[in-house]
Amino acid sequence: MNGEIFLVGTGQTKFGEWWQKSLRDLIEESLSAAIADAKISPLSIDAIVIGNMLGETLSEQAQLGALTSAMLPHRPPAIRVEAACASGSVAVHTACALLESRRAETVLVIGAEKMTDADPAHVAAALMGAGDSELDSPSGLTFPGIFGLVAARYMHEYGLTREDLSLVSARHHENAASNPFAQFRNAVTPEAVSESSLIADPLRLLDCSPITDGAAAMILSRTHRSPIRLKASQIATDTLSLTERPSMTSFASTRDAFSRACEEAEITKDDLAHLELHDCFSIAAIINLEDMGFADAGAGIRLYRDRSADLSINQSGGLKGCGHPVGATGVKQICDIAKQLKASKQRYGAAHNFGGAGATCCVHILEQTI
Amino acid sequence: MNGEIFLVGTGQTKFGEWWQKSLRDLIEESLSAAIADAKISPLSIDAIVIGNMLGETLSEQAQLGALTSAMLPHRPPAIRVEAACASGSVAVHTACALLESRRAETVLVIGAEKMTDADPAHVAAALMGAGDSELDSPSGLTFPGIFGLVAARYMHEYGLTREDLSLVSARHHENAASNPFAQFRNAVTPEAVSESSLIADPLRLLDCSPITDGAAAMILSRTHRSPIRLKASQIATDTLSLTERPSMTSFASTRDAFSRACEEAEITKDDLAHLELHDCFSIAAIINLEDMGFADAGAGIRLYRDRSADLSINQSGGLKGCGHPVGATGVKQICDIAKQLKASKQRYGAAHNFGGAGATCCVHILEQTI
Repeated sequence: MNGEIFLVGTGQTKFGEWWQKSLRDLIEESLSAAIADAKISPLSIDAIVIGNMLGETLSEQAQLGALTSAMLPHRPPAIRVEAACASGSVAVHTACALLESRRAETVLVIGAEKMTDADPAHVAAALMGAGDSELDSPSGLTFPGIFGLVAARYMHEYGLTREDLSLVSARHHENAASNPFAQFRNAVTPEAVSESSLIADPLRLLDCSPITDGAAAMILSRTHRSPIRLKASQIATDTLSLTERPSMTSFASTRDAFSRACEEAEITKDDLAHLELHDCFSIAAIINLEDMGFADAGAGIRLYRDRSADLSINQSGGLKGCGHPVGATGVKQICDIAKQLKASKQRYGAAHNFGGAGATCCVHILEQTI
Repeated sequence: MNGEIFLVGTGQTKFGEWWQKSLRDLIEESLSAAIADAKISPLSIDAIVIGNMLGETLSEQAQLGALTSAMLPHRPPAIRVEAACASGSVAVHTACALLESRRAETVLVIGAEKMTDADPAHVAAALMGAGDSELDSPSGLTFPGIFGLVAARYMHEYGLTREDLSLVSARHHENAASNPFAQFRNAVTPEAVSESSLIADPLRLLDCSPITDGAAAMILSRTHRSPIRLKASQIATDTLSLTERPSMTSFASTRDAFSRACEEAEITKDDLAHLELHDCFSIAAIINLEDMGFADAGAGIRLYRDRSADLSINQSGGLKGCGHPVGATGVKQICDIAKQLKASKQRYGAAHNFGGAGATCCVHILEQTI
């Protein structure tokens, strides 16, 4: 980073189905919580970045920057960014640039999504905006379909079994049980995952992160200080469509963003105590661990078979347990890493967030001054 | 600005109705033109920012950052930003932050919109995303309706006549005649404006900027140099809904963004030789001139009655003459100011871009080293 950027406050709504709350209600609730947690005056916020994917299509509301800015008495400059399900982390990246550029001293970052008011077919179609509208959508693909193809290919290449794959969601549900902000706090056995309804062969219902309402917010600052600093913020991209990639079982954007983030933070993967990764579908968690170097290709499931004493993975419950309000997830992951570092008194943690099938990947590394 | 940012290349599609071109075609055409104009290797581009409003709703395509990045061989990090009709200029602002932060040395900025494939009712509904979905849309307001209310109130307060108002679009059409990239290059008399179909009383068809396809792109750099530099980039915001503002005949965001931009550039309005302002509707041009201090309240029409020798206004043809592909306009305005400075050998020019009814306003000032 160009200068020190401190994470001085975090806040979020509980993730879930919020029939009685609008997109702006969720935004307001999360930003109020973050400002209260930071114990700063709202007037010290001199820029806002909000990540959101589906405001126009599901809430008929664009220009969320100005909308959010008007919630503060002094209406600071505001920008909305979108990178599908990576909108939240890309908002954090944009905030870093505003801080590093000296255009802002304190930035409010929000990720927000209101998904449950529309019928599921409409939501699935809107989410396909993250795919390739010329190469993917016309063939009838949905995101469960895309990751179903990925899972089928992975099983073919590496012999991953249905029983293995079910360990992923079971672990994420187990972790979510201790997270008061998670959508699903119920334990789920691997057998229940294997026996849940088939969605897109071989993926079953409990392999898939749900449709969720929620918002998360954080305050980043150069002048207000805290023990938690951002040490790296990196974006990498890939083709929108899987059909244009050399492999379906590895995501180049994860490899690029994670290696560049470690370089920026001047650490290796082994320095990380906590990792929040993008498990939009169970298979993605396994592949992401391999792409980040925590396991060889085909061996990612080992981190779900054996618990690592040195690295917590999706301790929050991940997207499967917490729910996945798409624009909010990237912000929430970073907030969770900050909480985990404070609780464990460890030094480094990382958050890994996808847009689409890894067409965008954004990785942040946090450091706690010990 | 924190350091020097040079505008080293510009490019755009002709604005118009491009039935045979998709959103991605328009993006690709504009970025190729900008790279060719800059005479740089695409490989020296180390970040992309794209401004777009309606990709999800009209082209079923989100995540335009990754989509655009894949058009370059090395897929640099990419961000899509949205601030309704100010998406383009807010993309330039975001690019400035990336450059000033030292995260990038050379940034490709694109504004793009594909609007004519959908039926007009769908487009009008999508554009209302720039308004307030709780306070404006439910009352049946459209943007012509909003600016119709503004025009009616302005006429009531200041006695502006129908004949006066018609001078604005007539002048913009006259200017567009010399712009090969403009959608409408035909002359239009003030009488023709006054006699065109009534759209939202008192606004008539020729008071309204059209629905347009188009894209514009520029290359900004800290290391590649050119005689044109960015001297200021400022965003200001206001409430989305007019119903929450003290006045309908003045836009606080224009006043704020323009005064801050002049301060940042260390100039006054009188130093400007060229101005591109946001004339989404004719009445907006008049009010914006007043809010920027070029005329007293109620007297903005004088700049259309008498030609100023010292300041060109919307020499490109403005939104009325060029067309208004909403996410592209803010980028195109800045490209036009650069062209005008080169042609006139003058020193300063400014571009003024609105989102919605001025809920976002973004102002850039360019300087030519003489």
